[in-house]
Amino acid sequence: MNYPNKIKKEFHKNVNYANRGMDLENIINDTNTYLLEKDLAVIYKKPTPIGVVKVSYENNHQIINKAYFATESTLDYNGLYKGKYVEFDAKSTKSKTSFPLSNIHPHQIEHIRNIIRHGGIVFLIIEMNSNFYLLNGPDLINFIDNYSRKSIPFTYIEKNSYLLEYNYLKGLNYLKYVDIIGGIE
Amino acid sequence: MNYPNKIKKEFHKNVNYANRGMDLENIINDTNTYLLEKDLAVIYKKPTPIGVVKVSYENNHQIINKAYFATESTLDYNGLYKGKYVEFDAKSTKSKTSFPLSNIHPHQIEHIRNIIRHGGIVFLIIEMNSNFYLLNGPDLINFIDNYSRKSIPFTYIEKNSYLLEYNYLKGLNYLKYVDIIGGIE
Repeated sequence: MNYPNKIKKEFHKNVNYANRGMDLENIINDTNTYLLEKDLAVIYKKPTPIGVVKVSYENNHQIINKAYFATESTLDYNGLYKGKYVEFDAKSTKSKTSFPLSNIHPHQIEHIRNIIRHGGIVFLIIEMNSNFYLLNGPDLINFIDNYSRKSIPFTYIEKNSYLLEYNYLKGLNYLKYVDIIGGIE
Repeated sequence: MNYPNKIKKEFHKNVNYANRGMDLENIINDTNTYLLEKDLAVIYKKPTPIGVVKVSYENNHQIINKAYFATESTLDYNGLYKGKYVEFDAKSTKSKTSFPLSNIHPHQIEHIRNIIRHGGIVFLIIEMNSNFYLLNGPDLINFIDNYSRKSIPFTYIEKNSYLLEYNYLKGLNYLKYVDIIGGIE
């Protein structure tokens, strides 16, 4: 995927987390910054969970000297849109034919079920075959519960998700489809 | 405050974050675990944001060798309750007469305004004078906008917030008042 140089630079400034650098994550962070600035939604990426092992002090400030990245049991992004609870995760796969379900931890699947049951909007944004797809949580759970497969065929994703559009100023237009899946006016 | 030994132990197991150990935080984490187990609400503490400076590899795993605790621009806890977006922070003060507003970062105040404007439920849980109070976001903002003071007098908190009850099995009964401030049946 190619973005204009200006945008590329924008995406790579303020890199705070060691495991950042993934294009999709940067696109979504920039999208959410745009949505916040335009006062359209209040959606943030949760900080990467870490387990701190060792801490010291430098000039009265705590410095972490040893820590590890922990696995997450919720999804990466959550927030508020038109009074509704919204949560999602962003996943990229290089496979052209199927999306491996190993990309989603069992705790996250359980969490997605919880969010659906409690009336929240939950989905995945999947980058695959150079496109971005929004797969609604219930459609993901439906696949998991009805097919004993280790990956979702691309044909299922194409048929059951929304193809997103990317704009270099506004980012990904995922809210358009949140209106639809959330039954929002 | 005194808790039975069993509970105290419970509170201090699984200490993953170096800056944990605060009683109020542990009480709220345990409350949220209870609410999740009873399927009453899906509310999590966001991980503490850190800025990673140096990373190395040990047996193919990333290890963080230097990092610092970053300041948060949102509140510590958020999630979903009866279809509603809920976000809050927990603050303790040892002052008996007033709650210093320096406990809340300007970015967090801005964020509280955003959540209110977009139709979410947002509040503080304040531990003060050996009690726990739930102060609704709009009542906090109302104080900030109408009084040019650096702290909220305890009399304002007593008058404008809900006194919470602590139960060693169920934790803090804050959802009871979320029903009220959120206009939930």
